[in-house]
Amino acid sequence: MEDATSIEQKLTQFLASFPALDAQTIAVLVKNIPVITPKKGTLLLKEGEVPKACYYVLEGLVRQYQFVDGTERTTAFYTERNGSVTAAHYSDQTAATFNLICAEDCLLIAGNLEIDAAHYAEFPILVEITKRMIETDLNETQQTLTNFILSPPKERYVQFLKAQPDLINRVPLHQIASYLGLTPESLSRIRKRLVTPSN
Amino acid sequence: MEDATSIEQKLTQFLASFPALDAQTIAVLVKNIPVITPKKGTLLLKEGEVPKACYYVLEGLVRQYQFVDGTERTTAFYTERNGSVTAAHYSDQTAATFNLICAEDCLLIAGNLEIDAAHYAEFPILVEITKRMIETDLNETQQTLTNFILSPPKERYVQFLKAQPDLINRVPLHQIASYLGLTPESLSRIRKRLVTPSN
Repeated sequence: MEDATSIEQKLTQFLASFPALDAQTIAVLVKNIPVITPKKGTLLLKEGEVPKACYYVLEGLVRQYQFVDGTERTTAFYTERNGSVTAAHYSDQTAATFNLICAEDCLLIAGNLEIDAAHYAEFPILVEITKRMIETDLNETQQTLTNFILSPPKERYVQFLKAQPDLINRVPLHQIASYLGLTPESLSRIRKRLVTPSN
Repeated sequence: MEDATSIEQKLTQFLASFPALDAQTIAVLVKNIPVITPKKGTLLLKEGEVPKACYYVLEGLVRQYQFVDGTERTTAFYTERNGSVTAAHYSDQTAATFNLICAEDCLLIAGNLEIDAAHYAEFPILVEITKRMIETDLNETQQTLTNFILSPPKERYVQFLKAQPDLINRVPLHQIASYLGLTPESLSRIRKRLVTPSN
């Protein structure tokens, strides 16, 4: 259970990672940025709904999934390492084509259009910071897409391990298989071959 | 051959598509934004080089590719429809892992860090506009990635036709196959099956 002081400390630490923000601005932002602490299993967004908020993961794990022919398919994981949960459907206020669920207890920044606009007007530097965060996200997403285009399944798993090494212990294997576009059986075979390369 | 007046007209038309920009700002920007007209075959960026500029396609087609085990693999196409050529390696000034080539005669906005910084300082609204453009790019790239994760090859091609219908007549089939992670033979079979669904 997170208390208010510990949450403020974590938010301060996150904001302090942006050199362009001075201590005074950070102190004001910490009082104004809404933070939520949803439990594991909380549905943040449901397929078909128009998102009311967008999220940044300070702690925990959010999983993105959707149903294809009745089967649940995982399409993204967001953690402290790549915290910006997709703002697709939020920025253009359209009905979501996927679900977002907390796969662990989470500590999340929960933005919304009104609060964002107010902060941007008061602290123009935030527009620049948000722009850089989105740029980083875009570069990472393009890299992930390039990996998908270039890599056969075995290599795709090796790259996943390299890019997000912690996830293998935080997420059930069938969800990782789904995310990599593999059947659980194929992933199992790939993992066995990696452990015993002589086979 | 594009003359200066026609280039200015096209740039004005592009900037006028952003409601936040007034006519006066557009007139100043048109005089200051560098536009280039590279011919088909021009290499804009070479694997291993640190990018000196970033590009937006006003007209034409830029192809992104890299070599994997000696084979050329296409990883993205940028046209008037999705004009922001990836700024990966440009924004963090690292060595490019891919090449960018003009696949047609092009009309491109060519940004660089100094000019960008000067424009942002003079017209803060540009930061907001650029942020929105990157957001749109991010949403589209995430959607493309989701399609890759969810779709078997045949469906991937159908989605490609839907998302970028003009490309089929502008790009050699072996490059489209490469981009879709297919062999030219597989793509050829898929195309035949789509034309004659009874087979």
